[in-house]
Amino acid sequence: MSAPLPLPPLVDHHCHGVARHDLAPDAFAAYLSESDAPPAPGTTFFDTQLGFAVRRWCPPLLDLEPHCPPEDYLRRRRELGAAEVNRRLLGSTGIADYVVDTGLTDGLLAPHELAAAGAGAACHEIVRLEWLAERIADRSGSRAAFLDALADAVEKAAGTAVGFKSVAAYRFGLDLPPEPPREAEVRAAADRWLGTRAPGGRLTDPVLLRHLLWSAVHTGRPIQLHTGFGDPDLSLHRCDPLLLTDFVRAVRPTGCTLVLLHGYPYHRGAAYLANVFPHVYADVGLNLSHVGASAEAVLSETLELTPFGKLLFSTDAHGLPERYVVGVELFRQALTRLLTGWVREDAWSSGDAERVAELIGAGNARRVYGLAVRTPVHDHRGFP
Amino acid sequence: MSAPLPLPPLVDHHCHGVARHDLAPDAFAAYLSESDAPPAPGTTFFDTQLGFAVRRWCPPLLDLEPHCPPEDYLRRRRELGAAEVNRRLLGSTGIADYVVDTGLTDGLLAPHELAAAGAGAACHEIVRLEWLAERIADRSGSRAAFLDALADAVEKAAGTAVGFKSVAAYRFGLDLPPEPPREAEVRAAADRWLGTRAPGGRLTDPVLLRHLLWSAVHTGRPIQLHTGFGDPDLSLHRCDPLLLTDFVRAVRPTGCTLVLLHGYPYHRGAAYLANVFPHVYADVGLNLSHVGASAEAVLSETLELTPFGKLLFSTDAHGLPERYVVGVELFRQALTRLLTGWVREDAWSSGDAERVAELIGAGNARRVYGLAVRTPVHDHRGFP
Amino acid sequence: MSAPLPLPPLVDHHCHGVARHDLAPDAFAAYLSESDAPPAPGTTFFDTQLGFAVRRWCPPLLDLEPHCPPEDYLRRRRELGAAEVNRRLLGSTGIADYVVDTGLTDGLLAPHELAAAGAGAACHEIVRLEWLAERIADRSGSRAAFLDALADAVEKAAGTAVGFKSVAAYRFGLDLPPEPPREAEVRAAADRWLGTRAPGGRLTDPVLLRHLLWSAVHTGRPIQLHTGFGDPDLSLHRCDPLLLTDFVRAVRPTGCTLVLLHGYPYHRGAAYLANVFPHVYADVGLNLSHVGASAEAVLSETLELTPFGKLLFSTDAHGLPERYVVGVELFRQALTRLLTGWVREDAWSSGDAERVAELIGAGNARRVYGLAVRTPVHDHRGFP
Repeated sequence: MSAPLPLPPLVDHHCHGVARHDLAPDAFAAYLSESDAPPAPGTTFFDTQLGFAVRRWCPPLLDLEPHCPPEDYLRRRRELGAAEVNRRLLGSTGIADYVVDTGLTDGLLAPHELAAAGAGAACHEIVRLEWLAERIADRSGSRAAFLDALADAVEKAAGTAVGFKSVAAYRFGLDLPPEPPREAEVRAAADRWLGTRAPGGRLTDPVLLRHLLWSAVHTGRPIQLHTGFGDPDLSLHRCDPLLLTDFVRAVRPTGCTLVLLHGYPYHRGAAYLANVFPHVYADVGLNLSHVGASAEAVLSETLELTPFGKLLFSTDAHGLPERYVVGVELFRQALTRLLTGWVREDAWSSGDAERVAELIGAGNARRVYGLAVRTPVHDHRGFP
Repeated sequence: MSAPLPLPPLVDHHCHGVARHDLAPDAFAAYLSESDAPPAPGTTFFDTQLGFAVRRWCPPLLDLEPHCPPEDYLRRRRELGAAEVNRRLLGSTGIADYVVDTGLTDGLLAPHELAAAGAGAACHEIVRLEWLAERIADRSGSRAAFLDALADAVEKAAGTAVGFKSVAAYRFGLDLPPEPPREAEVRAAADRWLGTRAPGGRLTDPVLLRHLLWSAVHTGRPIQLHTGFGDPDLSLHRCDPLLLTDFVRAVRPTGCTLVLLHGYPYHRGAAYLANVFPHVYADVGLNLSHVGASAEAVLSETLELTPFGKLLFSTDAHGLPERYVVGVELFRQALTRLLTGWVREDAWSSGDAERVAELIGAGNARRVYGLAVRTPVHDHRGFP
Repeated sequence: MSAPLPLPPLVDHHCHGVARHDLAPDAFAAYLSESDAPPAPGTTFFDTQLGFAVRRWCPPLLDLEPHCPPEDYLRRRRELGAAEVNRRLLGSTGIADYVVDTGLTDGLLAPHELAAAGAGAACHEIVRLEWLAERIADRSGSRAAFLDALADAVEKAAGTAVGFKSVAAYRFGLDLPPEPPREAEVRAAADRWLGTRAPGGRLTDPVLLRHLLWSAVHTGRPIQLHTGFGDPDLSLHRCDPLLLTDFVRAVRPTGCTLVLLHGYPYHRGAAYLANVFPHVYADVGLNLSHVGASAEAVLSETLELTPFGKLLFSTDAHGLPERYVVGVELFRQALTRLLTGWVREDAWSSGDAERVAELIGAGNARRVYGLAVRTPVHDHRGFP
């Protein structure tokens, strides 16, 4: 075991709500996978690195033994009820600031509820661009009304949210033309989309996806871009962050900050972009949670090229408070082992290791999103 | 050294025959590389991770010291003769079931001979689609006769073999259109190929390669697809398993199982597909043998996203019984170190580690190919 | 800590000059990054694996404590002056032969000055093809004069330099058509380029880049190709060495040796090409320096498939003598830990480990470039 490395109260710069109500066993298990289907015959989503990590870290928070069988865990979870489970699990994480992507909402806690369950943490909003456009399309009577309302909404969001998020990776891929679309192109694309769209229909048109991105760029707020691993809606090789290279170049003169989320298994490419372009940042994201016991190796690869002032901690937790717990514990363990190992072999000084842990865990996100440093209101190592 | 992890009698779900007769030194060394040429001046194929692994694990089975010089090893091999060497090496592996790709045959033991040399193991057949089509083309007088005979042969093979294999990666690349070709396209492609083909000529036409794949899909038998690393016939970046994403989507409604072989250095992409698509499985394959002393790292990467019910052990051994020995020993060592390490740091429970070892070593392959569990007839750790 | 592994006097087969004069703090820091811009607000180029490695290894050579603050280090550097710093740092490295890319020159020591500062090492020249063509274009009055002078210069360079280097990766990408361009194409491309070029203008035309490559191929001298990671002039995904696969095939019959530099994060692909093609070699390059404390992992990945007779040590040092120090120390540490680890777990014999260390550190480069073995004139472990 490594010597303890002091970690700051964390800023989780990319996360989602958790389920408000109790979950049936299959619904719980589905949140352990990015798959959109039931597990293959004879297999279970619990038999994954993420499933094992949940069984390692969460049972003790519900008064059970680590590694207890899934059935025992789910039974105890039902006994306690969602509100108590959320309170116990979120309260254990030491997250001081939740920066919440509000583009996923069904049955999930709102940011302020999440922060309240999380032992009095702060919350901040990230506005998902495609979600915004789809909500506006649902209520716009014409193309002109849609485009005007969208422009207003993006501007308004820039005043209240700390940043934007794009899921163009899911909707088309990152192999988009890099430059902003011309106005006539945008109008034609909006006509096409609104003309054929059923209420609730998803935005997948590449011209409109670029229009959203560039609308956000011009606000000057940081933009989070999904890259790499995700659910089967995306084609992974079209989500290589390096496909954004020309977009990164096009955005550079505007001064807008781009935060490349996740990136696995192309996280070394995301690190490269963060290394050579001043306005690009990289993220820990869902990578660590999903790789579980291998989190140290993946974090180490990410730290090969990412400048230490440019990597941001996040859990990408969604649906399950368990995802917050394992996102934090795997990050804490991986970072501690990695940095104390480097200190032990005298590659790094211990002062540098503490400083870098603070940057990745909180400082970089506070700088990028302009978050205030708050007095911690709880001991983040203290379990209830 | 790690504590021992009990491994089940193994199912080698993807392997080939070994040479029936003694091999000249150059022929032996050529099997240590995927190269199609002699080694560069001043170098030897023994100076590779695979070469070092052979020198580590095989000499003791022939009464020599580990790491002995190649010349000593080859001399002792000739003294003993191919039959005795095959018996000693195959008998040491603990493989209970050989699932043999019968598409490579020249001078190699047939599956039942392999299994007999392997201390009474069982054998099963995988039919290589391109090999089947080429054999039928050799004896078909017309396009209609070819297509009819091919359809019959695929159907017949589905009744006797436990699965199919495609080497479309070698013959064209994996960037094939995903959907089945239309009948008229297939007829035209068959006309072109049969019209220009010399006897023994290889099938490289992308329409016919897709026709073979879809003919196999419709039988419902599992299909093994070569992906990643292989000999210089292939262009590695065109063998990224993620290039199969749309094919995977197209196959999904049929319920046919796809097993992605090897995948290195894109094994994380293969793991991703196994994670998010219920009908996709991943393989250990030649990756471990070729990376030798680094097998633990590569296996660890593979286990980041592959669900534990979806990874299958294999050696991809070909030509040399030494390839079976090192394929098994490197897998055994890498898995033992990895899993016992995770147990030691309390990331996994020991019960889970034993269960996962059984799944990867045998259980998953038995489920996927429908193989019976047999009573082991030999102690798989016992050397002769 | 690992037991010491004897390393030979090193051949640094790919490096550049270091600054002749004192550097301002920002100019110093800029050499720590491949970025072309100042660091992002609130960050510093010292907060990278490379920056930490410089602070670990270099201060003691200037009478300071390891890990001292950057300001202290830069102050001491100015006190001592560039000549003394160069002498101390270069003198510490144990490099016996510098194989210098002379295509970067501004304010840098020439190869013989570098070798002299380096405690009496030998130097050899690598001619950068694009640099050669640009110098000739600066003084050529016509297309015919340019092409004739270029042909002469390449032939002449083949008589004095030990090899060529191509930076086509930076100028276009590696997705070039593989075959030599036809003469008429070359003439037309030269007309276009010379007709629009300002003095000093860079060569980016893909036809001329291919013409340079094939001109060098026909001399029979080894060609170094930049692949992978570099400054933001390049688009990293277009620098995957596997994009050279068809070029590698086209060059194969000529017998010309291709040395793939760097390759990160595609170094496993470069290793694959070195594994299956007899005339391809791989390089350690800037990978190790930039990943710092993770050098062992990256070297391990490189050694998975690269035959041990085919990997060449280099620092890719440029501008800072510190880059030589960390390039050597990180290589020395990474190789020692890796190989002694494999010996300790009995995967390799100690004799093999020593032999492989000699091959990678010096022997392979001596064979590839035809360098004589010299009697070492200094103890490469002895700091001044």
